[in-house]
Amino acid sequence: MAQINENFIKIPATYLFSEIAKRVTQHKEENPTAPIIRMGIGDVSLPLPNASVDAMIKAAEEQREESTFRGYGPEQGYSFLREAIVQNDFIAKGIDINVDEIFVSDGAKSDTGNIGDIFDVNNRVAITDPSYPVYVDTNAMAGRAGEPAKNGEWTNLVYLSCNEENGFVPELPVEAVDLVYLCYPNNPTGTTLTKEQLTVWVEYARENKVIILFDAAYEAFITEDNVPHSIYEIEGAKDVAIEFRSFSKTAGFTGTRCGYTVVPKQLMGFSQNGDEVSINRLWNRRQCTKFNGTSYVVQRAAEATFSPEGKKQVKALIDFYTENARIIREGLLKAGYTIVGGVNAPYIWAKAPVGMSSWEYFDYLLKEKNIVTTPGAGFGASGEGYVRFSAFGSRENTVEAMMRLHS
Amino acid sequence: MAQINENFIKIPATYLFSEIAKRVTQHKEENPTAPIIRMGIGDVSLPLPNASVDAMIKAAEEQREESTFRGYGPEQGYSFLREAIVQNDFIAKGIDINVDEIFVSDGAKSDTGNIGDIFDVNNRVAITDPSYPVYVDTNAMAGRAGEPAKNGEWTNLVYLSCNEENGFVPELPVEAVDLVYLCYPNNPTGTTLTKEQLTVWVEYARENKVIILFDAAYEAFITEDNVPHSIYEIEGAKDVAIEFRSFSKTAGFTGTRCGYTVVPKQLMGFSQNGDEVSINRLWNRRQCTKFNGTSYVVQRAAEATFSPEGKKQVKALIDFYTENARIIREGLLKAGYTIVGGVNAPYIWAKAPVGMSSWEYFDYLLKEKNIVTTPGAGFGASGEGYVRFSAFGSRENTVEAMMRLHS
Repeated sequence: MAQINENFIKIPATYLFSEIAKRVTQHKEENPTAPIIRMGIGDVSLPLPNASVDAMIKAAEEQREESTFRGYGPEQGYSFLREAIVQNDFIAKGIDINVDEIFVSDGAKSDTGNIGDIFDVNNRVAITDPSYPVYVDTNAMAGRAGEPAKNGEWTNLVYLSCNEENGFVPELPVEAVDLVYLCYPNNPTGTTLTKEQLTVWVEYARENKVIILFDAAYEAFITEDNVPHSIYEIEGAKDVAIEFRSFSKTAGFTGTRCGYTVVPKQLMGFSQNGDEVSINRLWNRRQCTKFNGTSYVVQRAAEATFSPEGKKQVKALIDFYTENARIIREGLLKAGYTIVGGVNAPYIWAKAPVGMSSWEYFDYLLKEKNIVTTPGAGFGASGEGYVRFSAFGSRENTVEAMMRLHS
Repeated sequence: MAQINENFIKIPATYLFSEIAKRVTQHKEENPTAPIIRMGIGDVSLPLPNASVDAMIKAAEEQREESTFRGYGPEQGYSFLREAIVQNDFIAKGIDINVDEIFVSDGAKSDTGNIGDIFDVNNRVAITDPSYPVYVDTNAMAGRAGEPAKNGEWTNLVYLSCNEENGFVPELPVEAVDLVYLCYPNNPTGTTLTKEQLTVWVEYARENKVIILFDAAYEAFITEDNVPHSIYEIEGAKDVAIEFRSFSKTAGFTGTRCGYTVVPKQLMGFSQNGDEVSINRLWNRRQCTKFNGTSYVVQRAAEATFSPEGKKQVKALIDFYTENARIIREGLLKAGYTIVGGVNAPYIWAKAPVGMSSWEYFDYLLKEKNIVTTPGAGFGASGEGYVRFSAFGSRENTVEAMMRLHS
């Protein structure tokens, strides 16, 4: 009798985005002409850089001819892309990462989800709260989260609350943990850790043989000097951290699908008898067994983001969203809101007026201002009382939304 | 202390293809001018259909413009592709499959590897022997295979030997199992099951609440009438089977990456307390949580294989490889070899001369004939004494290789 993975039925259905959709639909039905502006979505609105489109078309033409056709590529990604990544994202920034420490994939969601495959089910996992739901749900599926409790939290996860009181800087866990998810610049709060703050975590990980799963999907939005783009800017991090990167938000690849994961060769996990085991070797084995490489044309498109024209075009995209973020920040501040984020990230985390829940604030903005946000409670208990504004919309909508908040 | 998944260190390193590469390299060093023909590889040699290249370029151009740009797509795949699949691969062949039973992915390797996520670790798994190594390795990683035994088999897997004695038709397992992997047309043997033979399995699965994981990656190569292209041609199969399909071998997508998995809505697994649970719902949840959809441009390329020109071009590819397979079959038979496969599959499974192992036969063909094959022992214990010839090479090499066998 085929038995299902029981953990799946413990996970509540994701009501967040379907509930948002339901409320938006209802509002539209009641107000057919309402000029709704969507600021809840984490998707980009600007198209792919021309350099990437040109490279993709050139690669597609290669796939038409027998002499240039490419079949199965390396599971880890083509050298041309891995080398471009190493040179541009690491060596050029003074970080020593080798090509065989880079694993190209179809995106950071897959990698942050699949990374659990190589870790024991009994590891104790800490996540910042609020956080990207994939961290929680994938650990729940693997049985690493324990049981869902009545407060919406899982019994075996350690939640590191990020809130106004601690300045959205997670405190080191009191109880022993084995794996820690950190996402900086943060989704959903848009906050960052300084080099000093991240160093605290690297040192903690080194002392406690903890592995940090560092999600740097939003690093391209960093504008301040003291905010690390990579955890490997911190001394000793290569002994304790896996880093996830994505072309999605950087270069508009949300529908094109490319990301990569850095697994330093010196990073070790432990077997039951206490032996050190290379995490790089395990992830390589996982990828070679359960993945067959990223589409060749997509890898060429990703490579092109590192060309001189590609870099200019990517910078223009980032600058555009950064300006949106500035407009939102200033608009919300001017309207009297308490906010964080938006300086080094495309997200602004806004506090609901006193006594209003995430969903009440969401409803207020939807019904009174025709603005769709994301209720913070959807990202974890500590997200209650907040909503997330996204800077990925058009300039016109962004400006218009802020004007509405002042009216 | 970060503990690794202990199952990973139980899995032997995959020596098969590195060992082949090593021996080929050594042979080349000793014989620098040896005109080596590679017939071991499972990759295609002909380029993408023009219709797919054209569609991919058109889609790439859409990604250049804000008005036509596509960001995140549905995790399950775009409706345009799911509908084309349903119409062409199922409805047109009299099989009733719905769009929401199709999950588009980046390939069958990912899907056959990831499917284990939704099943309990204590399910008893049966695999045909020889088989595609991904079935064994992914179950070993999940802890479902038990321990590796000295004979190279895993203690908890049930091996269904396919050999000369049983005509390469797997017998029903004697002990109780919960999940069965079947791949037909088969990799590596190139053999098939008739409708009657597959019906035996469907009925067995229905009676025993077993789920069949049916890998149909090679269905396009079927030439005989009584060989099912889909397990859903068998009455009642929608209650017991998941089917994996791929554009890789059909349309040359090995480097472009697209496949899909069919999970009928009526297919049920069981929870620990015996309740029925929808497998479609679990797989949907898995994909929505750990996957972010297949690249838009790739989905357009896949859709184009179903256009009138696309169909003609795909047929030409299949006809080409099928003719190669015929040439290999006839060549091997003429040279006195005992073979199966090659009629409904791009693989020919050739028996080594009496007393010769897979590797000895491999070495003989490499050193005496400059032909690279794949030793059958690499696919499981029952593959010992065989080598696999692939029909995916060029016509010139295929003809030349057969001439060498006669010399």
